[in-house]
Amino acid sequence: MTDNTNKPRIGWIGTGVMGAPMCGHLLAEGYEASVYSRTLGKAETLIAQGANWCDSPAAVAERSDVVFTMVGSADEVHEVYFGKQGVFAGLQPAAIVVDMGTTPPSLARVIASHALSMGANAVDAPVSGGDVGARNGTLSVMAGGEEWVVESLRSLFDCMAGTVAWMGDAGSGQHTKMANQLAVAGTMIGVCEALVYAGRAGVDLEQLVVVISKGAAGCWTLSNLAPRIIRGDDSPGFMVDHFVKDLGIALGECEQMGITLPGLELADRLYRQTQAIGHGQSGTQALIHAIEQLQE
Amino acid sequence: MTDNTNKPRIGWIGTGVMGAPMCGHLLAEGYEASVYSRTLGKAETLIAQGANWCDSPAAVAERSDVVFTMVGSADEVHEVYFGKQGVFAGLQPAAIVVDMGTTPPSLARVIASHALSMGANAVDAPVSGGDVGARNGTLSVMAGGEEWVVESLRSLFDCMAGTVAWMGDAGSGQHTKMANQLAVAGTMIGVCEALVYAGRAGVDLEQLVVVISKGAAGCWTLSNLAPRIIRGDDSPGFMVDHFVKDLGIALGECEQMGITLPGLELADRLYRQTQAIGHGQSGTQALIHAIEQLQE
Repeated sequence: MTDNTNKPRIGWIGTGVMGAPMCGHLLAEGYEASVYSRTLGKAETLIAQGANWCDSPAAVAERSDVVFTMVGSADEVHEVYFGKQGVFAGLQPAAIVVDMGTTPPSLARVIASHALSMGANAVDAPVSGGDVGARNGTLSVMAGGEEWVVESLRSLFDCMAGTVAWMGDAGSGQHTKMANQLAVAGTMIGVCEALVYAGRAGVDLEQLVVVISKGAAGCWTLSNLAPRIIRGDDSPGFMVDHFVKDLGIALGECEQMGITLPGLELADRLYRQTQAIGHGQSGTQALIHAIEQLQE
Repeated sequence: MTDNTNKPRIGWIGTGVMGAPMCGHLLAEGYEASVYSRTLGKAETLIAQGANWCDSPAAVAERSDVVFTMVGSADEVHEVYFGKQGVFAGLQPAAIVVDMGTTPPSLARVIASHALSMGANAVDAPVSGGDVGARNGTLSVMAGGEEWVVESLRSLFDCMAGTVAWMGDAGSGQHTKMANQLAVAGTMIGVCEALVYAGRAGVDLEQLVVVISKGAAGCWTLSNLAPRIIRGDDSPGFMVDHFVKDLGIALGECEQMGITLPGLELADRLYRQTQAIGHGQSGTQALIHAIEQLQE
Protein backbone atom coordinates (compact mmCIF):
# COMPACT_ATOMS: atom_id res chain seq x y z
CA MET A 1 0.00 0.00 0.00
CA THR A 2 1.34 3.45 -0.96
CA ASP A 3 1.57 6.04 1.80
CA ASN A 4 -1.37 8.43 1.43
CA THR A 5 -0.43 10.87 4.16
CA ASN A 6 0.42 13.81 1.88
CA LYS A 7 -1.86 12.91 -0.96
CA PRO A 8 -5.07 14.84 -1.59
CA ARG A 9 -8.27 12.84 -1.32
CA ILE A 10 -9.74 12.48 -4.78
CA GLY A 11 -13.36 12.64 -5.86
CA TRP A 12 -14.42 11.40 -9.28
CA ILE A 13 -17.83 11.95 -10.84
CA GLY A 14 -18.62 10.32 -14.18
CA THR A 15 -17.02 6.96 -14.82
CA GLY A 16 -17.73 6.33 -18.49
CA VAL A 17 -15.35 5.35 -21.27
CA MET A 18 -13.09 8.33 -20.47
CA GLY A 19 -13.63 8.85 -16.76
CA ALA A 20 -13.19 5.24 -15.61
CA PRO A 21 -9.66 4.73 -16.96
CA MET A 22 -8.61 8.26 -15.93
CA CYS A 23 -9.73 7.68 -12.34
CA GLY A 24 -8.19 4.22 -12.56
CA HIS A 25 -4.75 5.76 -13.17
CA LEU A 26 -5.12 7.80 -9.97
CA LEU A 27 -6.09 4.71 -7.96
CA ALA A 28 -3.12 2.86 -9.45
CA GLU A 29 -0.86 5.64 -8.16
CA GLY A 30 -2.21 5.11 -4.67
CA TYR A 31 -4.69 7.97 -4.42
CA GLU A 32 -7.78 7.45 -2.29
CA ALA A 33 -10.85 8.10 -4.43
CA SER A 34 -14.57 8.57 -3.81
CA VAL A 35 -16.64 7.99 -6.90
CA TYR A 36 -20.13 8.68 -8.17
CA SER A 37 -21.69 7.89 -11.51
CA ARG A 38 -25.28 7.94 -12.75
CA THR A 39 -24.91 4.22 -13.40
CA LEU A 40 -23.41 2.23 -10.53
CA GLY A 41 -22.37 -0.53 -12.92
CA LYS A 42 -19.93 1.77 -14.68
CA ALA A 43 -18.04 2.33 -11.43
CA GLU A 44 -17.68 -1.34 -10.49
CA THR A 45 -14.17 -1.77 -11.89
CA LEU A 46 -13.03 1.28 -9.92
CA ILE A 47 -14.74 0.01 -6.76
CA ALA A 48 -12.91 -3.28 -7.24
CA GLN A 49 -9.69 -1.23 -7.44
CA GLY A 50 -10.51 0.30 -4.04
CA ALA A 51 -12.61 3.36 -4.84
CA ASN A 52 -15.35 4.33 -2.35
CA TRP A 53 -18.81 4.56 -3.85
CA CYS A 54 -20.89 7.62 -2.89
CA ASP A 55 -24.60 8.18 -3.52
CA SER A 56 -24.34 11.70 -4.93
CA PRO A 57 -21.91 14.34 -6.22
CA ALA A 58 -22.43 16.18 -2.91
CA ALA A 59 -21.31 13.12 -0.96
CA VAL A 60 -18.22 12.83 -3.14
CA ALA A 61 -17.39 16.51 -2.60
CA GLU A 62 -17.82 16.22 1.19
CA ARG A 63 -14.95 13.77 1.43
CA SER A 64 -12.60 15.11 -1.28
CA ASP A 65 -9.86 17.71 -1.61
CA VAL A 66 -9.95 17.60 -5.41
CA VAL A 67 -13.19 16.75 -7.24
CA PHE A 68 -12.92 15.71 -10.88
CA THR A 69 -15.95 15.64 -13.16
CA MET A 70 -16.20 13.88 -16.51
CA VAL A 71 -19.84 13.87 -17.54
CA GLY A 72 -21.77 14.55 -20.74
CA SER A 73 -23.84 17.51 -21.86
CA ALA A 74 -23.83 21.05 -20.50
CA ASP A 75 -27.13 20.29 -18.73
CA GLU A 76 -25.60 17.28 -17.01
CA VAL A 77 -22.55 19.30 -15.98
CA HIS A 78 -24.81 22.02 -14.60
CA GLU A 79 -26.84 19.48 -12.62
CA VAL A 80 -23.70 17.74 -11.29
CA TYR A 81 -22.38 21.05 -9.93
CA PHE A 82 -25.48 23.05 -9.06
CA GLY A 83 -28.12 20.34 -8.43
CA LYS A 84 -29.67 19.75 -5.00
CA GLN A 85 -27.23 16.91 -4.41
CA GLY A 86 -24.55 18.52 -6.58
CA VAL A 87 -20.87 19.13 -5.98
CA PHE A 88 -21.43 22.61 -4.59
CA ALA A 89 -23.84 21.22 -1.97
CA GLY A 90 -20.93 19.33 -0.40
CA LEU A 91 -17.79 21.14 -1.48
CA GLN A 92 -15.22 21.82 1.25
CA PRO A 93 -13.48 25.17 1.66
CA ALA A 94 -10.14 25.32 -0.19
CA ALA A 95 -11.10 22.32 -2.29
CA ILE A 96 -10.55 22.30 -6.06
CA VAL A 97 -13.09 21.23 -8.67
CA VAL A 98 -11.73 20.10 -12.04
CA ASP A 99 -14.07 19.63 -15.00
CA MET A 100 -12.26 17.45 -17.53
CA GLY A 101 -15.19 17.13 -19.92
CA THR A 102 -15.84 19.42 -22.86
CA THR A 103 -18.18 22.02 -21.41
CA PRO A 104 -19.24 25.48 -22.63
CA PRO A 105 -16.52 27.99 -21.69
CA SER A 106 -19.23 30.29 -20.35
CA LEU A 107 -20.43 27.53 -17.98
CA ALA A 108 -16.80 26.92 -16.93
CA ARG A 109 -16.61 30.57 -15.89
CA VAL A 110 -19.88 30.31 -13.93
CA ILE A 111 -18.56 27.24 -12.11
CA ALA A 112 -15.26 29.03 -11.38
CA SER A 113 -16.92 32.11 -9.96
CA HIS A 114 -19.29 30.03 -7.81
CA ALA A 115 -16.35 27.98 -6.49
CA LEU A 116 -14.51 31.18 -5.64
CA SER A 117 -17.54 32.49 -3.74
CA MET A 118 -17.32 29.34 -1.56
CA GLY A 119 -13.60 29.82 -0.88
CA ALA A 120 -12.77 27.00 -3.29
CA ASN A 121 -11.11 26.92 -6.71
CA ALA A 122 -12.09 25.59 -10.13
CA VAL A 123 -10.10 24.48 -13.14
CA ASP A 124 -11.53 23.70 -16.58
CA ALA A 125 -9.32 20.97 -17.99
CA PRO A 126 -10.72 19.34 -21.13
CA VAL A 127 -8.60 16.78 -22.88
CA SER A 128 -7.77 15.51 -26.30
CA GLY A 129 -6.57 12.02 -27.10
CA GLY A 130 -9.83 10.08 -26.83
CA ASP A 131 -10.47 6.79 -25.08
CA VAL A 132 -7.12 5.40 -26.23
CA GLY A 133 -5.35 8.34 -24.59
CA ALA A 134 -7.46 7.87 -21.47
CA ARG A 135 -6.54 4.17 -21.20
CA ASN A 136 -2.85 4.77 -21.93
CA GLY A 137 -2.52 7.85 -19.73
CA THR A 138 -1.36 9.91 -22.70
CA LEU A 139 -4.09 12.56 -22.86
CA SER A 140 -3.36 16.21 -23.57
CA VAL A 141 -4.84 18.49 -20.93
CA MET A 142 -5.78 22.11 -21.77
CA ALA A 143 -6.27 23.85 -18.44
CA GLY A 144 -7.89 27.16 -17.55
CA GLY A 145 -7.95 28.77 -14.10
CA GLU A 146 -5.47 30.31 -11.67
CA GLU A 147 -1.98 29.23 -12.70
CA TRP A 148 -0.94 28.16 -9.20
CA VAL A 149 -4.07 26.03 -8.89
CA VAL A 150 -3.32 24.28 -12.18
CA GLU A 151 0.27 23.76 -11.04
CA SER A 152 -0.93 22.26 -7.75
CA LEU A 153 -2.78 19.62 -9.79
CA ARG A 154 0.19 18.71 -11.95
CA SER A 155 1.10 15.46 -10.18
CA LEU A 156 -2.53 14.35 -10.54
CA PHE A 157 -2.74 15.31 -14.23
CA ASP A 158 0.58 13.54 -14.84
CA CYS A 159 -1.07 10.25 -13.88
CA MET A 160 -3.46 10.57 -16.85
CA ALA A 161 -1.80 12.83 -19.37
CA GLY A 162 1.25 13.13 -21.55
CA THR A 163 1.08 16.92 -21.68
CA VAL A 164 -0.57 19.56 -19.54
CA ALA A 165 -0.80 23.14 -20.77
CA TRP A 166 -1.99 26.08 -18.70
CA MET A 167 -3.92 28.28 -21.14
CA GLY A 168 -5.02 31.22 -19.00
CA ASP A 169 -7.92 32.12 -16.71
CA ALA A 170 -11.19 30.26 -16.17
CA GLY A 171 -12.71 29.09 -19.46
CA SER A 172 -9.40 29.20 -21.37
CA GLY A 173 -9.04 25.44 -21.31
CA GLN A 174 -12.50 25.04 -22.83
CA HIS A 175 -11.86 27.79 -25.39
CA THR A 176 -8.67 25.99 -26.40
CA LYS A 177 -10.60 22.77 -26.84
CA MET A 178 -13.15 24.60 -29.02
CA ALA A 179 -10.38 26.05 -31.19
CA ASN A 180 -8.97 22.54 -31.48
CA GLN A 181 -12.34 21.21 -32.65
CA LEU A 182 -12.68 24.04 -35.19
CA ALA A 183 -9.34 23.09 -36.71
CA VAL A 184 -10.28 19.40 -36.68
CA ALA A 185 -13.58 20.18 -38.41
CA GLY A 186 -11.73 21.93 -41.24
CA THR A 187 -9.31 19.07 -41.77
CA MET A 188 -12.18 16.55 -41.74
CA ILE A 189 -14.13 18.40 -44.44
CA GLY A 190 -11.01 18.92 -46.54
CA VAL A 191 -9.87 15.30 -46.30
CA CYS A 192 -13.33 13.83 -46.93
CA GLU A 193 -13.91 16.07 -49.96
CA ALA A 194 -10.45 15.22 -51.32
CA LEU A 195 -11.30 11.51 -51.04
CA VAL A 196 -14.76 11.86 -52.61
CA TYR A 197 -13.29 13.90 -55.46
CA ALA A 198 -10.34 11.59 -56.06
CA GLY A 199 -12.56 8.53 -55.84
CA ARG A 200 -14.86 9.86 -58.56
CA ALA A 201 -11.84 10.89 -60.62
CA GLY A 202 -10.49 7.34 -60.49
CA VAL A 203 -7.32 8.13 -58.56
CA ASP A 204 -5.90 5.34 -56.40
CA LEU A 205 -6.83 6.54 -52.91
CA GLU A 206 -4.11 4.79 -50.95
CA GLN A 207 -1.45 6.21 -53.25
CA LEU A 208 -3.12 9.63 -53.01
CA VAL A 209 -2.87 9.66 -49.22
CA VAL A 210 0.81 8.68 -49.34
CA VAL A 211 1.62 11.37 -51.88
CA ILE A 212 -0.30 14.35 -50.51
CA SER A 213 0.51 13.63 -46.85
CA LYS A 214 4.06 14.82 -47.41
CA GLY A 215 3.17 18.39 -48.37
CA ALA A 216 0.87 21.26 -47.48
CA ALA A 217 -2.18 18.96 -47.29
CA GLY A 218 -0.56 16.90 -44.55
CA CYS A 219 -2.60 16.52 -41.37
CA TRP A 220 -3.39 14.10 -38.58
CA THR A 221 -6.79 13.41 -40.13
CA LEU A 222 -5.25 12.47 -43.48
CA SER A 223 -2.65 10.19 -41.93
CA ASN A 224 -4.91 8.58 -39.32
CA LEU A 225 -8.50 8.66 -40.57
CA ALA A 226 -8.20 8.60 -44.36
CA PRO A 227 -6.86 5.01 -44.25
CA ARG A 228 -9.93 4.03 -42.17
CA ILE A 229 -12.24 5.73 -44.66
CA ILE A 230 -10.57 3.92 -47.56
CA ARG A 231 -11.06 0.53 -45.94
CA GLY A 232 -14.66 1.37 -44.96
CA ASP A 233 -13.95 1.42 -41.23
CA ASP A 234 -16.40 3.72 -39.42
CA SER A 235 -15.35 2.72 -35.92
CA PRO A 236 -14.60 5.51 -33.42
CA GLY A 237 -12.00 7.10 -32.50
CA PHE A 238 -14.08 10.04 -31.54
CA MET A 239 -17.82 9.67 -31.99
CA VAL A 240 -19.92 11.82 -34.31
CA ASP A 241 -22.47 12.38 -31.48
CA HIS A 242 -19.75 13.87 -29.30
CA PHE A 243 -18.34 15.98 -32.11
CA VAL A 244 -21.81 17.38 -32.83
CA LYS A 245 -22.09 18.26 -29.14
CA ASP A 246 -18.72 20.08 -29.29
CA LEU A 247 -19.60 21.94 -32.48
CA GLY A 248 -22.85 23.03 -30.83
CA ILE A 249 -20.89 24.43 -27.89
CA ALA A 250 -18.60 26.29 -30.29
CA LEU A 251 -21.60 27.74 -32.14
CA GLY A 252 -23.15 28.85 -28.86
CA GLU A 253 -19.95 30.59 -27.79
CA CYS A 254 -19.64 32.25 -31.21
CA GLU A 255 -23.16 33.57 -30.82
CA GLN A 256 -22.32 34.95 -27.37
CA MET A 257 -19.13 36.56 -28.70
CA GLY A 258 -20.97 37.84 -31.79
CA ILE A 259 -18.74 36.06 -34.28
CA THR A 260 -19.57 34.19 -37.49
CA LEU A 261 -17.55 31.20 -38.66
CA PRO A 262 -18.90 29.76 -41.93
CA GLY A 263 -16.65 26.69 -41.81
CA LEU A 264 -18.01 25.83 -38.37
CA GLU A 265 -21.57 26.32 -39.61
CA LEU A 266 -20.90 24.01 -42.54
CA ALA A 267 -19.29 21.39 -40.31
CA ASP A 268 -22.26 21.53 -37.93
CA ARG A 269 -24.69 21.05 -40.82
CA LEU A 270 -22.72 18.18 -42.36
CA TYR A 271 -22.16 16.40 -39.05
CA ARG A 272 -25.84 16.68 -38.12
CA GLN A 273 -26.55 15.08 -41.46
CA THR A 274 -24.02 12.35 -40.63
CA GLN A 275 -26.03 11.71 -37.45
CA ALA A 276 -29.30 11.78 -39.37
CA ILE A 277 -28.20 8.98 -41.68
CA GLY A 278 -27.43 6.74 -38.72
CA HIS A 279 -23.77 7.45 -38.00
CA GLY A 280 -24.05 9.13 -34.59
CA GLN A 281 -22.11 6.30 -32.98
CA SER A 282 -19.55 6.12 -35.78
CA GLY A 283 -16.19 7.85 -35.70
CA THR A 284 -15.85 11.38 -37.07
CA GLN A 285 -14.50 9.96 -40.34
CA ALA A 286 -18.10 8.88 -41.10
CA LEU A 287 -18.53 12.44 -42.41
CA ILE A 288 -17.58 10.84 -45.72
CA HIS A 289 -21.07 9.27 -45.87
CA ALA A 290 -22.80 12.65 -45.60
CA ILE A 291 -20.61 14.03 -48.38
CA GLU A 292 -21.15 10.92 -50.51
CA GLN A 293 -24.89 11.33 -49.99
CA LEU A 294 -24.74 14.81 -51.54
CA GLN A 295 -23.66 13.13 -54.78
CA GLU A 296 -26.74 10.93 -55.06
CA MET B 1 31.18 20.40 -70.25
CA THR B 2 29.11 17.30 -69.54
CA ASP B 3 28.72 14.74 -72.32
CA ASN B 4 25.29 15.21 -73.88
CA THR B 5 25.41 12.30 -76.29
CA ASN B 6 22.75 10.20 -74.57
CA LYS B 7 20.79 12.99 -73.00
CA PRO B 8 17.42 14.01 -74.42
CA ARG B 9 17.24 17.55 -75.77
CA ILE B 10 15.04 19.58 -73.46
CA GLY B 11 12.49 22.23 -74.30
CA TRP B 12 11.16 24.56 -71.63
CA ILE B 13 8.19 26.90 -72.06
CA GLY B 14 7.30 29.29 -69.26
CA THR B 15 10.19 30.63 -67.22
CA GLY B 16 8.48 32.37 -64.31
CA VAL B 17 9.09 32.00 -60.60
CA MET B 18 8.63 28.21 -60.82
CA GLY B 19 9.75 27.40 -64.36
CA ALA B 20 13.05 29.31 -64.34
CA PRO B 21 14.65 27.51 -61.38
CA MET B 22 13.23 24.14 -62.53
CA CYS B 23 14.77 24.52 -65.98
CA GLY B 24 17.91 25.86 -64.32
CA HIS B 25 18.37 22.56 -62.48
CA LEU B 26 18.28 20.70 -65.82
CA LEU B 27 20.87 23.07 -67.32
CA ALA B 28 23.04 22.60 -64.24
CA GLU B 29 22.93 18.84 -64.84
CA GLY B 30 24.25 19.39 -68.35
CA TYR B 31 21.05 19.08 -70.35
CA GLU B 32 20.78 21.11 -73.54
CA ALA B 33 17.67 23.27 -73.34
CA SER B 34 15.66 25.40 -75.74
CA VAL B 35 13.47 27.93 -74.00
CA TYR B 36 10.54 30.17 -74.74
CA SER B 37 8.65 32.52 -72.47
CA ARG B 38 6.11 35.25 -73.17
CA THR B 39 8.58 37.69 -71.64
CA LEU B 40 12.14 37.36 -72.92
CA GLY B 41 13.47 39.08 -69.79
CA LYS B 42 12.32 36.19 -67.62
CA ALA B 43 14.50 33.77 -69.58
CA GLU B 44 17.70 35.83 -69.41
CA THR B 45 19.22 33.98 -66.47
CA LEU B 46 18.64 30.66 -68.25
CA ILE B 47 20.12 32.01 -71.48
CA ALA B 48 23.17 33.12 -69.49
CA GLN B 49 23.35 29.51 -68.22
CA GLY B 50 23.48 28.29 -71.82
CA ALA B 51 19.84 27.84 -72.81
CA ASN B 52 18.91 28.52 -76.46
CA TRP B 53 16.18 31.12 -76.92
CA CYS B 54 13.40 30.26 -79.38
CA ASP B 55 10.74 32.58 -80.74
CA SER B 56 7.75 30.31 -80.18
CA PRO B 57 6.57 27.11 -78.49
CA ALA B 58 6.60 25.48 -81.95
CA ALA B 59 10.28 26.38 -82.41
CA VAL B 60 11.07 24.89 -78.99
CA ALA B 61 9.22 21.68 -79.87
CA GLU B 62 11.00 21.35 -83.22
CA ARG B 63 14.35 20.95 -81.54
CA SER B 64 13.36 19.01 -78.37
CA ASP B 65 12.86 15.40 -77.32
CA VAL B 66 11.06 16.38 -74.12
CA VAL B 67 9.05 19.61 -73.94
CA PHE B 68 8.17 20.92 -70.49
CA THR B 69 5.51 23.59 -69.99
CA MET B 70 5.00 25.70 -66.87
CA VAL B 71 2.58 28.45 -67.75
CA GLY B 72 -0.46 30.04 -66.09
CA SER B 73 -4.16 29.71 -66.79
CA ALA B 74 -5.97 26.99 -68.72
CA ASP B 75 -6.36 29.42 -71.63
CA GLU B 76 -2.61 30.04 -71.72
CA VAL B 77 -1.91 26.31 -71.55
CA HIS B 78 -4.34 25.71 -74.40
CA GLU B 79 -2.69 28.42 -76.51
CA VAL B 80 0.82 27.13 -75.75
CA TYR B 81 -0.12 23.66 -76.99
CA PHE B 82 -2.76 24.28 -79.67
CA GLY B 83 -1.95 27.82 -80.88
CA LYS B 84 -0.76 28.54 -84.42
CA GLN B 85 2.83 28.64 -83.13
CA GLY B 86 2.09 26.17 -80.34
CA VAL B 87 3.92 23.05 -79.22
CA PHE B 88 1.85 20.75 -81.43
CA ALA B 89 2.79 22.82 -84.51
CA GLY B 90 6.41 21.74 -84.04
CA LEU B 91 6.30 18.54 -82.02
CA GLN B 92 8.52 15.70 -83.24
CA PRO B 93 7.29 12.09 -83.48
CA ALA B 94 8.10 10.08 -80.33
CA ALA B 95 8.67 13.27 -78.33
CA ILE B 96 7.16 13.72 -74.88
CA VAL B 97 5.30 16.80 -73.64
CA VAL B 98 5.19 17.36 -69.88
CA ASP B 99 2.85 19.96 -68.39
CA MET B 100 4.12 20.73 -64.90
CA GLY B 101 1.66 23.53 -64.20
CA THR B 102 -1.71 23.07 -62.51
CA THR B 103 -4.09 22.60 -65.42
CA PRO B 104 -7.65 21.25 -65.66
CA PRO B 105 -7.50 17.43 -65.70
CA SER B 106 -9.90 17.46 -68.64
CA LEU B 107 -7.47 19.64 -70.63
CA ALA B 108 -4.62 17.32 -69.64
CA ARG B 109 -6.55 14.45 -71.25
CA VAL B 110 -7.18 16.47 -74.41
CA ILE B 111 -3.45 17.24 -74.66
CA ALA B 112 -2.59 13.57 -74.09
CA SER B 113 -4.94 12.31 -76.75
CA HIS B 114 -3.72 14.91 -79.24
CA ALA B 115 -0.08 13.98 -78.53
CA LEU B 116 -0.93 10.32 -79.08
CA SER B 117 -2.55 11.12 -82.41
CA MET B 118 0.81 12.62 -83.48
CA GLY B 119 2.79 9.57 -82.36
CA ALA B 120 4.04 11.45 -79.31
CA ASN B 121 3.32 11.10 -75.58
CA ALA B 122 2.09 13.43 -72.87
CA VAL B 123 2.46 13.48 -69.12
CA ASP B 124 0.62 15.76 -66.72
CA ALA B 125 3.00 16.39 -63.86
CA PRO B 126 1.88 19.18 -61.52
CA VAL B 127 3.96 19.82 -58.45
CA SER B 128 3.65 20.88 -54.87
CA GLY B 129 6.33 22.59 -52.84
CA GLY B 130 6.10 26.13 -54.22
CA ASP B 131 8.89 28.45 -55.30
CA VAL B 132 11.08 27.33 -52.41
CA GLY B 133 10.76 23.72 -53.59
CA ALA B 134 11.47 24.82 -57.17
CA ARG B 135 14.66 26.64 -56.16
CA ASN B 136 15.86 23.85 -53.88
CA GLY B 137 14.94 21.02 -56.27
CA THR B 138 12.69 19.46 -53.63
CA LEU B 139 9.31 19.57 -55.36
CA SER B 140 6.81 16.72 -55.22
CA VAL B 141 5.70 15.62 -58.66
CA MET B 142 2.28 13.99 -59.19
CA ALA B 143 2.40 12.41 -62.61
CA GLY B 144 -0.33 11.07 -64.89
CA GLY B 145 0.18 9.25 -68.19
CA GLU B 146 1.59 5.95 -69.40
CA GLU B 147 3.71 4.48 -66.62
CA TRP B 148 6.69 3.73 -68.85
CA VAL B 149 6.66 7.28 -70.17
CA VAL B 150 6.69 8.68 -66.62
CA GLU B 151 9.51 6.27 -65.75
CA SER B 152 11.50 7.42 -68.79
CA LEU B 153 11.37 10.96 -67.38
CA ARG B 154 12.57 9.99 -63.92
CA SER B 155 16.16 11.20 -64.29
CA LEU B 156 14.81 14.56 -65.48
CA PHE B 157 12.28 14.85 -62.66
CA ASP B 158 14.97 13.89 -60.18
CA CYS B 159 16.86 17.08 -61.07
CA MET B 160 13.93 19.17 -59.78
CA ALA B 161 12.03 17.04 -57.32
CA GLY B 162 12.40 15.19 -54.05
CA THR B 163 9.61 12.75 -54.84
CA VAL B 164 7.91 11.61 -58.03
CA ALA B 165 4.69 9.61 -57.86
CA TRP B 166 3.01 7.97 -60.84
CA MET B 167 -0.72 8.34 -60.17
CA GLY B 168 -2.32 6.63 -63.17
CA ASP B 169 -3.39 7.52 -66.69
CA ALA B 170 -3.59 10.97 -68.31
CA GLY B 171 -5.15 13.53 -65.99
CA SER B 172 -4.39 11.57 -62.81
CA GLY B 173 -1.56 13.89 -61.86
CA GLN B 174 -3.86 16.90 -62.15
CA HIS B 175 -6.65 15.13 -60.27
CA THR B 176 -4.19 14.36 -57.47
CA LYS B 177 -3.19 18.00 -57.34
CA MET B 178 -6.86 19.00 -57.12
CA ALA B 179 -7.45 16.56 -54.25
CA ASN B 180 -4.38 18.03 -52.58
CA GLN B 181 -5.82 21.54 -52.89
CA LEU B 182 -9.19 20.41 -51.52
CA ALA B 183 -7.49 19.06 -48.41
CA VAL B 184 -5.39 22.22 -48.10
CA ALA B 185 -8.54 24.37 -48.39
CA GLY B 186 -10.13 22.51 -45.46
CA THR B 187 -7.11 22.90 -43.23
CA MET B 188 -6.85 26.63 -44.10
CA ILE B 189 -10.47 27.29 -43.14
CA GLY B 190 -10.20 25.24 -39.97
CA VAL B 191 -6.96 26.85 -38.84
CA CYS B 192 -8.08 30.40 -39.64
CA GLU B 193 -11.39 29.95 -37.85
CA ALA B 194 -9.62 28.42 -34.84
CA LEU B 195 -7.35 31.47 -34.66
CA VAL B 196 -10.18 33.99 -35.08
CA TYR B 197 -12.20 32.20 -32.41
CA ALA B 198 -9.32 31.87 -29.97
CA GLY B 199 -8.24 35.45 -30.55
CA ARG B 200 -11.71 36.74 -29.65
CA ALA B 201 -11.82 34.39 -26.65
CA GLY B 202 -8.55 35.85 -25.34
CA VAL B 203 -6.50 32.66 -25.63
CA ASP B 204 -2.75 33.11 -26.19
CA LEU B 205 -2.42 32.15 -29.84
CA GLU B 206 1.21 31.03 -29.81
CA GLN B 207 0.53 28.72 -26.89
CA LEU B 208 -2.64 27.50 -28.65
CA VAL B 209 -0.71 26.46 -31.74
CA VAL B 210 1.87 24.59 -29.68
CA VAL B 211 -0.81 22.75 -27.72
CA ILE B 212 -3.24 21.75 -30.45
CA SER B 213 -0.54 20.88 -33.01
CA LYS B 214 0.24 17.71 -31.08
CA GLY B 215 -3.17 16.12 -31.50
CA ALA B 216 -5.98 15.56 -33.98
CA ALA B 217 -5.89 19.21 -35.10
CA GLY B 218 -2.29 18.90 -36.18
CA CYS B 219 -1.58 19.88 -39.78
CA TRP B 220 1.05 21.46 -42.02
CA THR B 221 -1.03 24.64 -42.17
CA LEU B 222 -1.18 24.94 -38.39
CA SER B 223 2.56 24.35 -37.96
CA ASN B 224 3.74 26.45 -40.90
CA LEU B 225 1.17 29.16 -41.59
CA ALA B 226 -0.47 29.83 -38.21
CA PRO B 227 2.81 31.33 -36.88
CA ARG B 228 2.87 33.68 -39.89
CA ILE B 229 -0.74 34.68 -39.26
CA ILE B 230 0.01 35.38 -35.61
CA ARG B 231 2.89 37.69 -36.47
CA GLY B 232 0.87 39.41 -39.22
CA ASP B 233 3.02 38.06 -42.06
CA ASP B 234 0.97 37.79 -45.28
CA SER B 235 3.91 36.97 -47.53
CA PRO B 236 3.58 34.00 -49.89
CA GLY B 237 4.28 30.91 -49.78
CA PHE B 238 1.60 30.13 -52.24
CA MET B 239 -0.35 33.09 -53.59
CA VAL B 240 -4.09 33.60 -53.10
CA ASP B 241 -4.47 34.37 -56.83
CA HIS B 242 -3.01 30.98 -57.71
CA PHE B 243 -5.09 29.18 -55.12
CA VAL B 244 -8.26 30.80 -56.48
CA LYS B 245 -7.25 29.60 -59.93
CA ASP B 246 -6.79 26.04 -58.59
CA LEU B 247 -10.11 26.08 -56.70
CA GLY B 248 -11.79 27.24 -59.90
CA ILE B 249 -10.32 24.27 -61.76
CA ALA B 250 -11.56 21.94 -59.03
CA LEU B 251 -15.06 23.45 -59.22
CA GLY B 252 -15.07 23.04 -62.98
CA GLU B 253 -14.07 19.39 -62.74
CA CYS B 254 -16.70 18.79 -60.04
CA GLU B 255 -19.31 20.26 -62.36
CA GLN B 256 -18.16 17.98 -65.19
CA MET B 257 -18.23 14.95 -62.89
CA GLY B 258 -21.59 16.02 -61.42
CA ILE B 259 -20.36 16.24 -57.85
CA THR B 260 -21.03 18.80 -55.12
CA LEU B 261 -18.43 19.69 -52.50
CA PRO B 262 -19.73 22.32 -50.06
CA GLY B 263 -16.34 22.84 -48.40
CA LEU B 264 -14.80 23.60 -51.78
CA GLU B 265 -17.62 26.04 -52.55
CA LEU B 266 -17.08 27.79 -49.25
CA ALA B 267 -13.30 27.95 -49.79
CA ASP B 268 -13.85 29.40 -53.26
CA ARG B 269 -16.18 32.05 -51.88
CA LEU B 270 -13.88 33.00 -49.00
CA TYR B 271 -10.74 33.07 -51.14
CA ARG B 272 -12.45 35.25 -53.76
CA GLN B 273 -13.33 37.58 -50.92
CA THR B 274 -9.67 37.49 -49.81
CA GLN B 275 -8.75 38.63 -53.34
CA ALA B 276 -11.47 41.27 -53.30
CA ILE B 277 -10.04 42.93 -50.20
CA GLY B 278 -6.66 43.28 -51.85
CA HIS B 279 -4.87 40.08 -50.86
CA GLY B 280 -4.53 38.39 -54.26
CA GLN B 281 -0.75 38.62 -54.06
CA SER B 282 -0.62 37.56 -50.41
CA GLY B 283 -0.01 34.02 -49.23
CA THR B 284 -2.93 31.66 -48.67
CA GLN B 285 -2.82 32.42 -44.94
CA ALA B 286 -4.34 35.82 -45.81
CA LEU B 287 -7.68 33.98 -45.68
CA ILE B 288 -7.66 35.14 -42.06
CA HIS B 289 -8.49 38.68 -43.27
CA ALA B 290 -11.64 37.53 -45.07
CA ILE B 291 -12.77 35.67 -41.96
CA GLU B 292 -11.92 38.63 -39.74
CA GLN B 293 -13.93 40.84 -42.07
CA LEU B 294 -17.03 38.70 -41.45
CA GLN B 295 -16.86 39.82 -37.81
CA GLU B 296 -17.10 43.55 -38.58
